[in-house]
Amino acid sequence: MKINQERLQQHFEEMSEIGKIGETGICRPSQSSIEKQAFELARSWMEEAGMTVRIDHFGNLIGRLEGKDQTKPVLMLGSHLDSQPYGGRFDGVAGVLAAIEVVTTLTEQGMTPENPIEVVSFSDEEGWRFNKGLFGVRGILGQLEEGELLRKDKDGITREQALIDFGCDPNKFDESVYPQNSIAAFLELHIEQGPILEEKDQPIGIVSAISGPLWLTVRLTGFAGHAGSVPMAIRQDALVGAAEIIVALNEIAKQDPSAPTVSTVGTIDVFPNSRNIIPEKVEFTVDLRDIDINRRDLYETQLRERIQKVADKHQLTYEIIEDTKSEPRFCADWIKDIIRNECKEKGLEAPELMSGPFHDSLAMSYACDYGMIFIRCKDGISHNPAEYASYDDLAKGTDIMFGTVLKMIKQLQPSLTT
Amino acid sequence: MKINQERLQQHFEEMSEIGKIGETGICRPSQSSIEKQAFELARSWMEEAGMTVRIDHFGNLIGRLEGKDQTKPVLMLGSHLDSQPYGGRFDGVAGVLAAIEVVTTLTEQGMTPENPIEVVSFSDEEGWRFNKGLFGVRGILGQLEEGELLRKDKDGITREQALIDFGCDPNKFDESVYPQNSIAAFLELHIEQGPILEEKDQPIGIVSAISGPLWLTVRLTGFAGHAGSVPMAIRQDALVGAAEIIVALNEIAKQDPSAPTVSTVGTIDVFPNSRNIIPEKVEFTVDLRDIDINRRDLYETQLRERIQKVADKHQLTYEIIEDTKSEPRFCADWIKDIIRNECKEKGLEAPELMSGPFHDSLAMSYACDYGMIFIRCKDGISHNPAEYASYDDLAKGTDIMFGTVLKMIKQLQPSLTT
Repeated sequence: MKINQERLQQHFEEMSEIGKIGETGICRPSQSSIEKQAFELARSWMEEAGMTVRIDHFGNLIGRLEGKDQTKPVLMLGSHLDSQPYGGRFDGVAGVLAAIEVVTTLTEQGMTPENPIEVVSFSDEEGWRFNKGLFGVRGILGQLEEGELLRKDKDGITREQALIDFGCDPNKFDESVYPQNSIAAFLELHIEQGPILEEKDQPIGIVSAISGPLWLTVRLTGFAGHAGSVPMAIRQDALVGAAEIIVALNEIAKQDPSAPTVSTVGTIDVFPNSRNIIPEKVEFTVDLRDIDINRRDLYETQLRERIQKVADKHQLTYEIIEDTKSEPRFCADWIKDIIRNECKEKGLEAPELMSGPFHDSLAMSYACDYGMIFIRCKDGISHNPAEYASYDDLAKGTDIMFGTVLKMIKQLQPSLTT
Repeated sequence: MKINQERLQQHFEEMSEIGKIGETGICRPSQSSIEKQAFELARSWMEEAGMTVRIDHFGNLIGRLEGKDQTKPVLMLGSHLDSQPYGGRFDGVAGVLAAIEVVTTLTEQGMTPENPIEVVSFSDEEGWRFNKGLFGVRGILGQLEEGELLRKDKDGITREQALIDFGCDPNKFDESVYPQNSIAAFLELHIEQGPILEEKDQPIGIVSAISGPLWLTVRLTGFAGHAGSVPMAIRQDALVGAAEIIVALNEIAKQDPSAPTVSTVGTIDVFPNSRNIIPEKVEFTVDLRDIDINRRDLYETQLRERIQKVADKHQLTYEIIEDTKSEPRFCADWIKDIIRNECKEKGLEAPELMSGPFHDSLAMSYACDYGMIFIRCKDGISHNPAEYASYDDLAKGTDIMFGTVLKMIKQLQPSLTT
């Protein structure tokens, strides 16, 4: 093994202390003082590896190792250090610490790559704080949407204010956008967050594609009234309507048991939220994913029809906001081939698998070729303090990543120099 | 008309300024500085009416007009000045201001009643702040339950702390409890909060009984996981479970369309409440009411069976907490007769009707005979800023209440003194 497993584990253990909840949990909101602490720790390791480090105006932490030719497009590695509010130690972190370990190993061995390598911890991958994710990576690619800075977290703090508090300057976003063709390729290591590698008894998987999510926010409005006196027949109860829609969505997503479709309502808010008042307003989020975009579109249509029916039945008005609508994005064959060969050389079978969760790679796929290495994760559990990947598996994956990076750089060069 | 309609309206208008939200709404939480303001205003009117005024250790505002015989049991009048978080100007307030107007009219006319009369604004009738209502009235009757002082509001403030902040001393509760048989009878005027009087085109109604509520809190626990990767078949989604139960409860309560059964889920909380995480924990409240206690018991059994089934289906664990379980309580015939005669004398038909909502009277019914006068309310709307009763109707009801009080006092005397 080329990389240093002991050092890698040490880095995980130190990082796990920042934003720790309970024994094994993490709550590290993006653009917070806790994420800043994590950045400072990662920065110190990046600098030890010979990188120059900056935090850009989107709140991304970026370490850069100069290549032999500074004008060449960047090979970008990375993931994110922010976590879910009730998350684990490995989601996102694995990709950042593996990338740092890869560059540290490179420089320890006295290698200088042809292309510059950058290791990035992207800001707000998770998206729960402002109800929209992949913020930092979309930022550097010039893909932010109108109104994003006005989104508020649960304390009423806008994205704009959070960025300013973090030391960023939203007026200088342009300075942090990467020009077209300045990124040669992107490689991300991540825990699987699902049960497939464990089932196949394999530590490493090669991602074939990411099934992007459809994210909706549904707002229902009925009419408040006394819980004890308004007859059932004339109620306009927004929560009964929401409950019927949640049940319906669950049935829609499960209608073909052989399909990998998943749907989730993760948040719900009721107004006025008194046990003695019929709910007047309910807002909830919808997450719908599928590798088959046609099937997802069909299910979305079914859901929208059902919302209309439920609203009619309970005399509710409604609004559906589309927060995110991503299509499935496929990994580059040449990167998959390199990863597969690396694994073969190390005696690993490395099955190919789809990713249900999205990652920073999803946004990067619009700017350059990308590849992803998955690490087996216990019981498929993620977004939960019980999330776990073994340090053995993480080291194996990081070692594969090291070899992959070397071969990717080779392959990026015009054939006359090889 | 004996009472002063202009003064009564003036009092409503002044009171409506305290805790005002929007044009016509009120948010006046119990045991808050806003309720204290309302108490100070009511205190000034009580004192003008010749009452001596105190706030007891349960946070009740009590004005006392001495009778000719101070040792006689009290005729108690009142309701509450706290409101729902998104409430109106009349719920509770009407009963307090009408009672003050009745006593003011008495003393203006130079009358001294045989029995002392007390006008009470009971503390925390509404019950939303600490998820349990009728606090003050149960307090003076020695009916508080274990653990009530430890209940917390949404900001984590305990009932105990709220009382202390309000100037009360929970160690002195005993001093504020009324001895048995010290209350002769209780009379409460209230807006109907339902559509029946309006349908019958009658300003005043006579309450026959209050159908007490069953209040439950249901807690479901599943297992958090990534919204994009955990296959639908193995999910333990607590919110899908909750939604199925909410839909089921709605169907249970509506199974007999001719029955006045009502059910409401007014609050729901999800943990961890991230759009990207399968809900692990959901807590929601259940409110189930019926005038037929056997039917309500049957429906409760059906609900509990359904919760068990849903929990099994989704591999959830659950807990059901019984917050309140009241039985229907009937008004005293002799008080209903007096109200009916008063109405007849004024040319009003005054239909008898049940109360779906509960009131301070519900608790008083365990200590003494009680009666209730209902006032027509627009579109049956209550617990909503749109709640409305006309000042004409309120004045008519207050005038009926004045006559009723005089006759009740007469009837309370042993026959040799009449």
